[in-house]
Amino acid sequence: MAKFLTNRDENYAQWYNDLVIKADLAENSAVRGCMVIKPYGYAIWEKIQAELDRMFKATGHVNAYFPLFIPKSFFSKEAAHVEGFAKECAVVTHYRLKNDENGKGIIVDPTAKLEEELIIRPTSETIIWHSYKSWIQSYRDLPILINQWANVVRWEMRTRLFLRTAEFLWQEGHTAHATRQEAVEETEKMINVYAEFAENFMALPVIKGYKSENERFAGALDTYAIEALMQDGKALQAGTSHFLGQNFAKAFDVQFTDKTGKLDYVWATSWGLSTRMIGALIMAHSDNNGLVLPPKLAPLQVVIIPIFRNTGQLDTISVTARKIKAELESAGISVKYDDRDNNTPGYKFADYELKGVPVRIAIGPRDIENGTVEVARRDTLEKKTLPLTELNSHIGFLLGDIQKNIYEKALKFRSENTFYVDKWSEFTEILDNQGGFLMAHWDGTAETEEKIKEETKATIRCIPFDSPDEEGFCIYSGKPSKKRVLFARSY
Amino acid sequence: MAKFLTNRDENYAQWYNDLVIKADLAENSAVRGCMVIKPYGYAIWEKIQAELDRMFKATGHVNAYFPLFIPKSFFSKEAAHVEGFAKECAVVTHYRLKNDENGKGIIVDPTAKLEEELIIRPTSETIIWHSYKSWIQSYRDLPILINQWANVVRWEMRTRLFLRTAEFLWQEGHTAHATRQEAVEETEKMINVYAEFAENFMALPVIKGYKSENERFAGALDTYAIEALMQDGKALQAGTSHFLGQNFAKAFDVQFTDKTGKLDYVWATSWGLSTRMIGALIMAHSDNNGLVLPPKLAPLQVVIIPIFRNTGQLDTISVTARKIKAELESAGISVKYDDRDNNTPGYKFADYELKGVPVRIAIGPRDIENGTVEVARRDTLEKKTLPLTELNSHIGFLLGDIQKNIYEKALKFRSENTFYVDKWSEFTEILDNQGGFLMAHWDGTAETEEKIKEETKATIRCIPFDSPDEEGFCIYSGKPSKKRVLFARSY
Repeated sequence: MAKFLTNRDENYAQWYNDLVIKADLAENSAVRGCMVIKPYGYAIWEKIQAELDRMFKATGHVNAYFPLFIPKSFFSKEAAHVEGFAKECAVVTHYRLKNDENGKGIIVDPTAKLEEELIIRPTSETIIWHSYKSWIQSYRDLPILINQWANVVRWEMRTRLFLRTAEFLWQEGHTAHATRQEAVEETEKMINVYAEFAENFMALPVIKGYKSENERFAGALDTYAIEALMQDGKALQAGTSHFLGQNFAKAFDVQFTDKTGKLDYVWATSWGLSTRMIGALIMAHSDNNGLVLPPKLAPLQVVIIPIFRNTGQLDTISVTARKIKAELESAGISVKYDDRDNNTPGYKFADYELKGVPVRIAIGPRDIENGTVEVARRDTLEKKTLPLTELNSHIGFLLGDIQKNIYEKALKFRSENTFYVDKWSEFTEILDNQGGFLMAHWDGTAETEEKIKEETKATIRCIPFDSPDEEGFCIYSGKPSKKRVLFARSY
Repeated sequence: MAKFLTNRDENYAQWYNDLVIKADLAENSAVRGCMVIKPYGYAIWEKIQAELDRMFKATGHVNAYFPLFIPKSFFSKEAAHVEGFAKECAVVTHYRLKNDENGKGIIVDPTAKLEEELIIRPTSETIIWHSYKSWIQSYRDLPILINQWANVVRWEMRTRLFLRTAEFLWQEGHTAHATRQEAVEETEKMINVYAEFAENFMALPVIKGYKSENERFAGALDTYAIEALMQDGKALQAGTSHFLGQNFAKAFDVQFTDKTGKLDYVWATSWGLSTRMIGALIMAHSDNNGLVLPPKLAPLQVVIIPIFRNTGQLDTISVTARKIKAELESAGISVKYDDRDNNTPGYKFADYELKGVPVRIAIGPRDIENGTVEVARRDTLEKKTLPLTELNSHIGFLLGDIQKNIYEKALKFRSENTFYVDKWSEFTEILDNQGGFLMAHWDGTAETEEKIKEETKATIRCIPFDSPDEEGFCIYSGKPSKKRVLFARSY
């Protein structure tokens, strides 16, 4: 087959890259670190957007749009924030090109220099809180529950398609509240929305938890994250929700009058999920034949392929195929009938496996005689011959079953690769061999966390919300600890 | 009323600006020329997006995403293109900030200068055709029918909310074809999609036509446009579709092997429609009470307002109101029940008129006794008392009738303000008084077009597709002409 993939077990990184390219999801562009999201990859993003947008609206949020540019002075107002992002900012300094007088083509016009440089947003807290200042006077103006779908730029030095790119697409929620408690509740609500989305739509089991201080968002008092385990034993942070306290309100002087007439700073949250999730989707489920997509996010759920030797056979098969297509579509299932005659059925089978289409229906002349079809599921590659009369109900069942099976498979993989570790030698050994999630005690200090990272490249992915109280001793320092935290190497 | 608008007939420009601000559609941001699209304005954009996206997909297009940044050298490859956009480009020159060693805060790190400057896309032909080069080898790879939803930046010096902003949101289609004819057909197809959208959804009658050479897109062989007439007698270009010939294929060396094995350059189109359409929507239909939104694009179609003196009355009314809301919603109508008790009904009436909600239902204690409600339509401000039993069918009818009426009103206005003019004195007189669309003969030269523009500020908006052949003499030069073209002052 032309679209050969590197074997996943031999070179996971190369397998991933091959898959992204060969399944036509994305490719590198001429601009360093920026990708082109191709139609098939973008169709997955559209599915992700539609579901998340529905969930955000169901939880009371509305969409808006704020400028791409952030004045440098705004960006500097929150100290931790600028510290966190300054090293990876794309900066606009000029606003005009012109013909070079010495005939060297088009140059930047030196007379068109901006008085104040503009930063391309790496995230929008600063420009948004500048606006909120004029929107908020009283408790009656609160809460503000806004989300934005946008592109952002972080000038990363080492990039990988979907996982880490200089420009990426995301949504960023920015909410404003009258009380600390309400903002904390919002932060929790949104990490729960992300977890529900990951588990129910992406078929991706996640661990919800707090980030350690080292790993928090620049400017947050608390960051909640969902962490997922990839098939190579590395963790991937799949979404974050930040409790920002009054930091941005103070930086931008956003105060409000509460019900008692007292002036106070506004409480804030922000939360985001990006095209990185497509990377997670690929790495969590796919195999050596290509993508495995959960039916709820698959751009195409069913493909019908005719097996024929001549146009007479094709015509007969097409009558049945089009009837099946229409019936499945009327049940809300997306279906393609691929009757191209310039590729063999074998080529098509492999191509749709590569693209992760959950269900394939093949129809040959004998099927027509017998009133049957062959149905194959992408997750297990199992095939089954079915009477036509049972097809509709079976496909409905199958899509649900594949969604469930992919999730359960990922959950099983995670269970088998989650280790409760109490000895340092075991900790490093597991990391160097199979990888996985390591639940270990930690003394709670940034120093220890930093040293573990230096020595093993593992970081604290999160302090799981549901990690029970348990007396123990730090895996590294031996000092007392009250609960286990989740360590892993990560993307 | 607090949200007082400037009178439309006294100062149209100020009325427009007041309306955008007071109806909470958008506001200026801290970044020169960039707007914040507020939730209510963005909700209109979401409706526009949803409809257009559906229409694009129904005509065979798919979405994708290309980088925000364009290397300067790409941008320069098509001569007319760079000439058209060079003067309004935001340029990224650096990729890092740092702390100033002299304690002057955060500065751009001079050591992080890009080798080649990056232009923020003002439109994406160049970066997209660079990608297409590697996507297209054979006629089998064609056509490519891609659309992108994106933000673009044109450093305009004089900006106005929605109508002309430095950053705006839009969609841009970029298609590639094997033959000239197919590309021309695509260009036509998409201007027809825009016209259908404008007329059926925006209730905006438009004139379809060719742009004169002067007014063409930079790099196009032909530009088709839809032109609409605003209430102040000025024209607004509401969407354009460009036949690009082989210009970009030649600039980026994109050749393909045709069915006969011959190598040829690929044929191209591009077409775009932006947040500017929200400006058109406002200026075409709205009045001194505020927005008038066509029901098909109104974020909220029906508002229910209770008229009450005490909570007992409110409770009784609420039972009926919630029942009405549920019934209308089950018919796919968007409804809000505004039972806030801190604003008077009068305030609410004015506020929803300002926001252009098409239908208002008011319910008072007497209505409850009589089994009636009061229904008011935003377009004509007419009120009517109706038995509850007739409400559902009436609202369905009313939304359709408002949509139709707004369109017909705009069409009537355009008819009354379209003038067939043959004398120069009449031409200038009409422009200086009522404005409007002027159908006049033109000698077909760029010189005459330029002089007319200099003397009157009127431009050729388009050469209408349906302008009949007619012998005549140029309104300015007196030279022979074969058909009338559409002149107007414009936004």
